[in-house]
Amino acid sequence: MKAHIITIGDELLIGQVVDTNSAWMAQRLDGIGVKTIQITSVQDQASQILETVGMAVSQCDVVLITGGLGPTKDDITKSTLARFFNDELVVHQPTLENIEELFKRRGLEMTELNMRQAMVPASCKVIHNALGTAPGMWFEKNGTIIVSMPGVPFEMKNIMEEYVLPQLSQMINGRFIIHKTILTNGIGESFLSDMISNWEDELPQYMHLAYLPSPGMVRLRLTGTGEHKPSLQLAMNTEIEKLQNIIPQYI
Amino acid sequence: MKAHIITIGDELLIGQVVDTNSAWMAQRLDGIGVKTIQITSVQDQASQILETVGMAVSQCDVVLITGGLGPTKDDITKSTLARFFNDELVVHQPTLENIEELFKRRGLEMTELNMRQAMVPASCKVIHNALGTAPGMWFEKNGTIIVSMPGVPFEMKNIMEEYVLPQLSQMINGRFIIHKTILTNGIGESFLSDMISNWEDELPQYMHLAYLPSPGMVRLRLTGTGEHKPSLQLAMNTEIEKLQNIIPQYI
Repeated sequence: MKAHIITIGDELLIGQVVDTNSAWMAQRLDGIGVKTIQITSVQDQASQILETVGMAVSQCDVVLITGGLGPTKDDITKSTLARFFNDELVVHQPTLENIEELFKRRGLEMTELNMRQAMVPASCKVIHNALGTAPGMWFEKNGTIIVSMPGVPFEMKNIMEEYVLPQLSQMINGRFIIHKTILTNGIGESFLSDMISNWEDELPQYMHLAYLPSPGMVRLRLTGTGEHKPSLQLAMNTEIEKLQNIIPQYI
Repeated sequence: MKAHIITIGDELLIGQVVDTNSAWMAQRLDGIGVKTIQITSVQDQASQILETVGMAVSQCDVVLITGGLGPTKDDITKSTLARFFNDELVVHQPTLENIEELFKRRGLEMTELNMRQAMVPASCKVIHNALGTAPGMWFEKNGTIIVSMPGVPFEMKNIMEEYVLPQLSQMINGRFIIHKTILTNGIGESFLSDMISNWEDELPQYMHLAYLPSPGMVRLRLTGTGEHKPSLQLAMNTEIEKLQNIIPQYI
């Protein structure tokens, strides 16, 4: 499987921002056996986006796009993709609710611009963005998969880990990868690690735990791999229940 | 003036290395009024390099290429550019001497591979690489300038600062930029700065000083801008002579 990564944004072309997304994505693709053959950065400009996506689709099995999904006028990736797929923009109800929820939580008023974030090309499969307002979008054309994601690194990474990489991996080798993230609060990484070390040692070989510390919390990401999705789901849920019994006060 | 930056190297496409060269180059081009419209990373693969360079040349006034100039078999940028320009590789005597000198200084034996670093396409103008064995190469084709540079960031930056940016800037606005670098030894940045502050304050407005500290030494880079190259050269040499009289023991 061959991939082309496209990053979109004027800030990349004036050197204001170093494109770290591409290296991260290329590395993760490499990890599941997808070979990146080209990385291209282009401006927020319809003709350039159309040309680059067109070329990428004709050469590769997977095209991953980041950037240009913000609510302001200079962000034109979504409307340009609609043009590329000969498609129209429609409101995606669950995304609209997600945005409303995010704004309510932050105590902010929603504007017309924010609502527009919930519009997507009709033909795409929407990928939930748990960490922001711009959803991911999954398209297929002539056998090529095209995924558009936000350029904000942590939003992109979350969409990749939770959805894109597992999907691609399953397509390639028939194996499912499932990630489950557990938030812990009020305990440092090393203390946490001590408390759950027995549980961690006894995880089945096809499960793997990662510690993702950030200020005030440690996220635990449990990754499982298997050929049968429902049994994998079940096995992982069982392990998470065990964990909840070990450290109920921190979850 | 429009530019396309091409970075070449398998390490970029597996995500082993983040491409920081492109952002740096784009920023510097922006600084002299050259607009970067695309950044492309491709593998060390002749067909991909040829296709990308061909496309870039047809769209832009300047194509800057980094990477793929090492001595080993996987580095094919030079032979591929020779193919692109229908050219043959010839030995560039000053480069060969530069390499011999570098090896002598390091007390190392030269091999056939190292000597090959001194071969360049016959039609290019060779740009001296003061910090490494792979020279820069300047080509022109159908009115487009194509420059090939090593991927090692400090070698690329030195070639850009000392040669490529001044040349391009002069082409664009008829103004010359001249950089002169003075090595100082045995004195820390802040002490040095104190000792030469009067001299620095009295520099003409069209000259600018930068401190580039590294372990054991501080490089001073004096940059001058003007419309008449010989008078600018002269004025800068005069300032450097003054400096040499102020801190003779450290230069």
